[in-house]
Amino acid sequence: MAKVLTPRAENYSQWYNDLVIKADMAENSAVRGCMVIKPYGYAIWEKMQAELDRMFKETGHVNAYFPLFIPKSFFSKEADHVKGFAKECAVVTHYRLKNSPDGKGVVVDEKAKLEEELIIRPTSETIIWHTYKNWIQSYRDLPLLINQWANVVRWEMRTRLFLRTAEFLWQEGHTAHATKKEAVEETLTILDVYSDFAENYLGIPVIKGLKTENEKFAGAVDTYCIEALMQDGKALQAGTSHFLGQNFAKAFDVKFATNDGKTEHVWATSWGVSSRLIGALIMAHSDDNGLVLPPKLAPFQVVIVPIYRKPEEREQTVDRAHQIKKELLAKGISVKVDDRDTHKPGWKFAEYELKGVPVRLAIGPRDLENKTIEIARRDTLTKEVVPQEGIAELIDQLMIDIQESIYNKALKFRETNTKNADSWDEFLERLDEGGFVLAHWDGTTETEKLIQEQTKATIRCIPMDVPAEEGICIKSGKPSKGRVIFAKAY
Amino acid sequence: MAKVLTPRAENYSQWYNDLVIKADMAENSAVRGCMVIKPYGYAIWEKMQAELDRMFKETGHVNAYFPLFIPKSFFSKEADHVKGFAKECAVVTHYRLKNSPDGKGVVVDEKAKLEEELIIRPTSETIIWHTYKNWIQSYRDLPLLINQWANVVRWEMRTRLFLRTAEFLWQEGHTAHATKKEAVEETLTILDVYSDFAENYLGIPVIKGLKTENEKFAGAVDTYCIEALMQDGKALQAGTSHFLGQNFAKAFDVKFATNDGKTEHVWATSWGVSSRLIGALIMAHSDDNGLVLPPKLAPFQVVIVPIYRKPEEREQTVDRAHQIKKELLAKGISVKVDDRDTHKPGWKFAEYELKGVPVRLAIGPRDLENKTIEIARRDTLTKEVVPQEGIAELIDQLMIDIQESIYNKALKFRETNTKNADSWDEFLERLDEGGFVLAHWDGTTETEKLIQEQTKATIRCIPMDVPAEEGICIKSGKPSKGRVIFAKAY
Repeated sequence: MAKVLTPRAENYSQWYNDLVIKADMAENSAVRGCMVIKPYGYAIWEKMQAELDRMFKETGHVNAYFPLFIPKSFFSKEADHVKGFAKECAVVTHYRLKNSPDGKGVVVDEKAKLEEELIIRPTSETIIWHTYKNWIQSYRDLPLLINQWANVVRWEMRTRLFLRTAEFLWQEGHTAHATKKEAVEETLTILDVYSDFAENYLGIPVIKGLKTENEKFAGAVDTYCIEALMQDGKALQAGTSHFLGQNFAKAFDVKFATNDGKTEHVWATSWGVSSRLIGALIMAHSDDNGLVLPPKLAPFQVVIVPIYRKPEEREQTVDRAHQIKKELLAKGISVKVDDRDTHKPGWKFAEYELKGVPVRLAIGPRDLENKTIEIARRDTLTKEVVPQEGIAELIDQLMIDIQESIYNKALKFRETNTKNADSWDEFLERLDEGGFVLAHWDGTTETEKLIQEQTKATIRCIPMDVPAEEGICIKSGKPSKGRVIFAKAY
Repeated sequence: MAKVLTPRAENYSQWYNDLVIKADMAENSAVRGCMVIKPYGYAIWEKMQAELDRMFKETGHVNAYFPLFIPKSFFSKEADHVKGFAKECAVVTHYRLKNSPDGKGVVVDEKAKLEEELIIRPTSETIIWHTYKNWIQSYRDLPLLINQWANVVRWEMRTRLFLRTAEFLWQEGHTAHATKKEAVEETLTILDVYSDFAENYLGIPVIKGLKTENEKFAGAVDTYCIEALMQDGKALQAGTSHFLGQNFAKAFDVKFATNDGKTEHVWATSWGVSSRLIGALIMAHSDDNGLVLPPKLAPFQVVIVPIYRKPEEREQTVDRAHQIKKELLAKGISVKVDDRDTHKPGWKFAEYELKGVPVRLAIGPRDLENKTIEIARRDTLTKEVVPQEGIAELIDQLMIDIQESIYNKALKFRETNTKNADSWDEFLERLDEGGFVLAHWDGTTETEKLIQEQTKATIRCIPMDVPAEEGICIKSGKPSKGRVIFAKAY
C-alpha cells in the first residue's frame, strides 16, 4: 500500500499537516484561522478533558462559566495585560443584521452599534476578576478555586491546526487566595498536575521551569511552564501556571477583610492548557505510518479485524471477534470490531495504523481452528500470534506496557537531544542539531533578545530540577547563576 | 430564620430571580444579557451534560467542534433560515485593537477591518453544512451522526437568567442521512431521548408534539418539541428536534452518490437543548424555601450536619458523620459533610434547604448514644429519626423515592392544569387560570396569529399522543381535525 504521508525526514511540517488531515483529526474551516475538530480528534480532546477535570476536582477545584465577551475597557485596567492581550482580538461592534437594500442577503445594521465594543475573550482574567470583586468580602470567602472550560480567540496571523489557531479550546483556572504563600503553592500544585498529566497520560516527558521576565504572561509576577520536545527537535510549551500576585486584585479593586480585621488585596493565580496538546501528542509520538496514540487517550484502544472469504467463515470470525470484544470490555478496555464488508482487511490494517489504534487484533479461519489470534502493536509495529485463552489479561497488561514504552521512547529521545553548550560557537552548533540546549545566560532581557534575534532560539524556561551551577553567559560573557534551556520553539 | 425569597404566590417572577441569585446558581455579568454561571449552577449543568452525552453516544452519535464564527454570507444561503436567524446577532467587524491616541486605553484599529463580517453562531447549521459538503460524497459516508457542545449568541433584548440570555450553553446535533425515512426516524429518536431525559432526570413530565408552521425552526420542514408546564401555569419549550428535509443540503450543495449510482441531495436533522433546562428545573420543582433538586442531578445528594456544643462532642459527631459518608459513597451516593465551626446548625439547615440538597442528615450527641440519625427530605420537608444501622440502604432507596416523588408531583400539577376549552369564552377563562389548554384550531397561521394577538397565548404544539378528534376551531368556527395545546409561554 502506498504511503499516504510525507515522511518526517523529508518534511516534518508537511508530515504533520498530512497526518492531521489524513487521520481525520481536524481541518481548516471556511473561517480564516479557525479549525473544525473532527470526531476522531475531538474524542481525544474529550479523554484529555475527562482526566484533567478529574485531577482539578481532586485538588479542590470546581467549574464555572463566564461570558464570552469582555468590555473593551476591561483590558486597559491591568497595565501589562493590555500590552499582551489587547492586540490581535476579535472585536464585536454591532448587534444586528438587516436585509440588504438590493434584496440580496444581509448587511450590518449601522443603527445597531454597541456603545462600547466587546472583545471575544483571548483569556478571562479581566472579566473574572471584575466578577470576583462581588464574591469576595472576607477571608471566609477564600480561597476561590475555579476552573472554566471554554473557547477563546486570538487573531493569529500564521495558524497551524491544533498548534496555533484563531479560536481554540482550553481550560483556564482562576484562583483567589488570602495569602501570597497559598497562591504560590496553588501555582505549583497546578504545575505538578500538568506535568503529571503530560507524562502519565500524553506520555510526553516535560521540563518544569520558570519563564523569564521577557517570556512570562502579561500581568503575571511569575509564569511557570512545562516544556516538551518534539521529534524535529523543536520545543513546545505544553502548559502554563501563573502566579499573578495582587496585580489583578489591584486592577479590579478586590479586597478582603482578614481574620484579624485588616483589609488587603487578594492574591491570584491563573493557569491553562489547550487543544494545542493534541498537536503535541501527534508530534511527540507519531511515525511515518501515522498516529501513535498512548492507550490512556486513544478513542478506542483495540480494534478487532475478522478475516474471512466465505460466508460461514465470516459468521464464525465475526462472532468470535464480538466474544473477544466482550471479554476486553469487561476489563475496561475500549474496543471496536470492524466487520464491514465494504473494505478489505489490508485497507483496514492501514487505516487503523494511520489512526494510531494501540493494538490491532486479527482473527481468521486458521485462528479459529488453532484457538489463536494475531496481536499487532502500533507503537513497535510488531506482531505475534497468541492463544485466545487469556487474551483479556494479556491486553490489559499490554496497555500498561505500551503506555510506558511510548513515554520511555520520548524520554530517551529528549535525553539524547538535550545538550550543554559552553561557548557561543558550541551553542550555535547545538541549536543547529535541534533539541534543548542548556547554557549559561546573564539573566538580562537584553541578552535574551539579542540571542533570539541572532538564532531564533528562545529561553524555554529556567528549569526547576537542575542543580545551581555558576558559569559565564554564552553571549555576553557576564556571570550566570545557572543554566537555562534554549530551543527553537512552536 | 427570615425567609430570603419572595413567595411564589406574591410574585413568581421575583421568586425565580431571588432563587437563582440566593442559591448561587448564576448572576448577571458586566456584559448586557450575558450571565455568569456560578459553580453550584454549573455543577448541575455538568450532570445534565454527562447524562445527555451518554444518551447521545448510546444512540450512535459522536462529538465534534465547529467554529464560533460564521461568515455573514452563509446566512443568506437558506431562505427561511436567514429570516429567522440573521437578525439579532453579535457581529465581528475588526480583528485588532491599538493604543488610543490619548494614551488612555485601547481603541479599535480601523485598518484591521474584516473583508466580510463574521457572525457569532446563533446556531450552526450553515457552517456545518458548508463543512459536510466536503465530508459526503457517497452513501458510504452516511449517516453522519454528530453533536456539538458549544456556546451560542442571540442578541436578546429582554433577558432572564438561564431562560433567555444573549450567550448560552447548549448542544446541537447535526445529522446527515441517505433517505428521508432515516432522517425522520433520527428526529424522533432524539425527541425520545429528550423526553426520557426530561422525565427521568429533570423529573419534569413533557408533552411531545409538532410545532405549527408559524412556530417551527427557520429552515426546518418539521420541528418536534417537548413542552413542559411551570408552576405559574406558563409553558416552557424544553427541547426541539428538527427534520430539515433537503433544505440545507440544497442551500450548500451537498449531494451523494447512492447505492445504485444516482446523485441525490442529503437529508438532514438538527436538535438541541440548552442551559435553559436549568431554569426549567428550578421553576418546575422549587418552593418558597428554595431549590428542590432531583437526586439524579443534584451536585451532591446528601449533606451531613454534625451537631455539638463541647469539643469532645464535636470530635465524636464529626467522626461519625465521616464514617456515614463513607458508607454512602460506597453506594454511589454523593455526600458533603459540613463540619465548619464558622456557621451554626440552624444556618446550615436553611442553607442546604435553599440549595435543594435532596436529603439532610443531622447527628448529635443523643444520636450517638441511641445509635440514631435524623433524616430530612427536602422535597416533602419531612423529618424522622432512624437507626444508623442500615442508613446507606435506606438512603439509596430514598434517592429513588424522591426522584419519583418529584416527578409525580409535577405530573399531578400538569394534569390538574391541563384543561379542554370548547368555546372562545371558555378558552379565555382557561387561559386566565393558567396551564395547558387543549382546544380546536382550524390549522391556519392566520387564526393562530389572531389568537396570539388577542390573548398572548401560543400554540405550544400539536401533541403526538392525543387521539384525533374532529371539532370546531374556537376562534374561527371552521372545522378542526384535532386539539392543539395553547398556553402562555416563557
